[in-house]
Amino acid sequence: MARPPLNKDTTLCISLAARPSNIGTRFHNYLYDRLGIDFIYKAFTTTDIAAAIGGVRALGIRGCSVSMPFKEDVLALVDHVDDSARAIHSVNTIVNDDGVLTASNTDYVAVERLIAEHGLQSDQTVLIHGSGGMAKAVGSAFRDNGFRDGTVVARNESVGPELADQLGYRWRSHVGGAAASIIVNVTPVGMAGGAEEHDSPFPAELIAAADTVFDVVALPSETPLILAARAAGKPVITGAEVIALQAAEQFERYTGVRPTPELVAEASKISRA
Amino acid sequence: MARPPLNKDTTLCISLAARPSNIGTRFHNYLYDRLGIDFIYKAFTTTDIAAAIGGVRALGIRGCSVSMPFKEDVLALVDHVDDSARAIHSVNTIVNDDGVLTASNTDYVAVERLIAEHGLQSDQTVLIHGSGGMAKAVGSAFRDNGFRDGTVVARNESVGPELADQLGYRWRSHVGGAAASIIVNVTPVGMAGGAEEHDSPFPAELIAAADTVFDVVALPSETPLILAARAAGKPVITGAEVIALQAAEQFERYTGVRPTPELVAEASKISRA
Repeated sequence: MARPPLNKDTTLCISLAARPSNIGTRFHNYLYDRLGIDFIYKAFTTTDIAAAIGGVRALGIRGCSVSMPFKEDVLALVDHVDDSARAIHSVNTIVNDDGVLTASNTDYVAVERLIAEHGLQSDQTVLIHGSGGMAKAVGSAFRDNGFRDGTVVARNESVGPELADQLGYRWRSHVGGAAASIIVNVTPVGMAGGAEEHDSPFPAELIAAADTVFDVVALPSETPLILAARAAGKPVITGAEVIALQAAEQFERYTGVRPTPELVAEASKISRA
Repeated sequence: MARPPLNKDTTLCISLAARPSNIGTRFHNYLYDRLGIDFIYKAFTTTDIAAAIGGVRALGIRGCSVSMPFKEDVLALVDHVDDSARAIHSVNTIVNDDGVLTASNTDYVAVERLIAEHGLQSDQTVLIHGSGGMAKAVGSAFRDNGFRDGTVVARNESVGPELADQLGYRWRSHVGGAAASIIVNVTPVGMAGGAEEHDSPFPAELIAAADTVFDVVALPSETPLILAARAAGKPVITGAEVIALQAAEQFERYTGVRPTPELVAEASKISRA
């Protein structure tokens, strides 16, 4: 079941980022092809986010994925902001229903789903390492799902305490001496090509003391942290799971079709090849 | 040489019309495929032409073909209006060079080229039947190429004389008794599916007296007028030539590539199938 040739009724979805990659374009178009959906998807950039979102509305572009540096700017440009985006003041997905734009954040939604799928319990303690936009999404998803006993670890002495305050969590400047049942890395440590790609964001004793290890870094899918956790026999949640789930969530919001986990895995693999 | 799979660097061209057809989408995509050009083309409609053109600029959409009812409205929304569009106060093509929008009218350009290709001479008399937007494009192309002895035939007693005045031509309310070396039909008479599809816009004696017969009606390509002119042994210019030439002109402005007449003929045939 291939999708039909491009025609006047083909639905367009796009992404907006300062530096577009091919990942989303490959991911969505692969699934359209496999599922025979009459959509196309293409990455764009812009120097005028207000006119670009105005164009999404006026041209009937069905979906618009939003990346840095537009995730906050678009809040003021849409008609509705759903809870997922409101919670973290950050948008990665806009759906256009006949000119009415609704913003959401499928990173937040994906973390919520992973908390449920992996059977995490809200009376478990949680330690979040990082204080950027994704740390906010992860922390808010835990907090909003009833996790009250939490710690934010971040060297930055203004952003770190600010995020901890928002979540009602403790703040620590360093990871040494901390411990929790669920430990989550939301720093770039362990990311392929980064300065600390061979490092683990948590010392061995924290991994040993944890019940679940969650790494938001997706490239490589087997980060030093995930490898260490697996070696210690700990259940893990990987960044690849977050990315696949948020993309599937976005795909469903745009098309109304939920791709199977197998298809999402295929599309993810191909889109990163 | 097929075009590459859709990717982040693929260039988008669009059309804007109240009622989009598939003709442009098929025509341009067929040529992109055949020429291996990394472009896609899709028809759109809008209820907000200003935001749509703002979106073209902000999203870096390379080209935008403009149809009814937007051909005049977009004049105020672009950065430059070239002579072809200025002459007739009507736009059918917008090219986006890094956010700078230039409007032109390739119908006018196509008629100019056909005048040259068919060796028409500016001292020939010309009779234009019709007074709509396309009649204005045709009349202006003749006038701007030095044809000074002209007549506009139009029943409408306000629009007809107005167009004749603009061109410096005579006006007649009816075709009877008129005669000219070049006779041009820009009415819907002879158009497939129209009320007068079996009629000729000119009586036999005008055809007999003419040196060249030009019919802007493109569907069918062999209108009653063209058939009658061929039967009378007169050289003809067809509406299919106008459409193919204007589309090739538009294609070249968007892509920088001039398709061969053979390819344009193939693409035209396929786009109307």
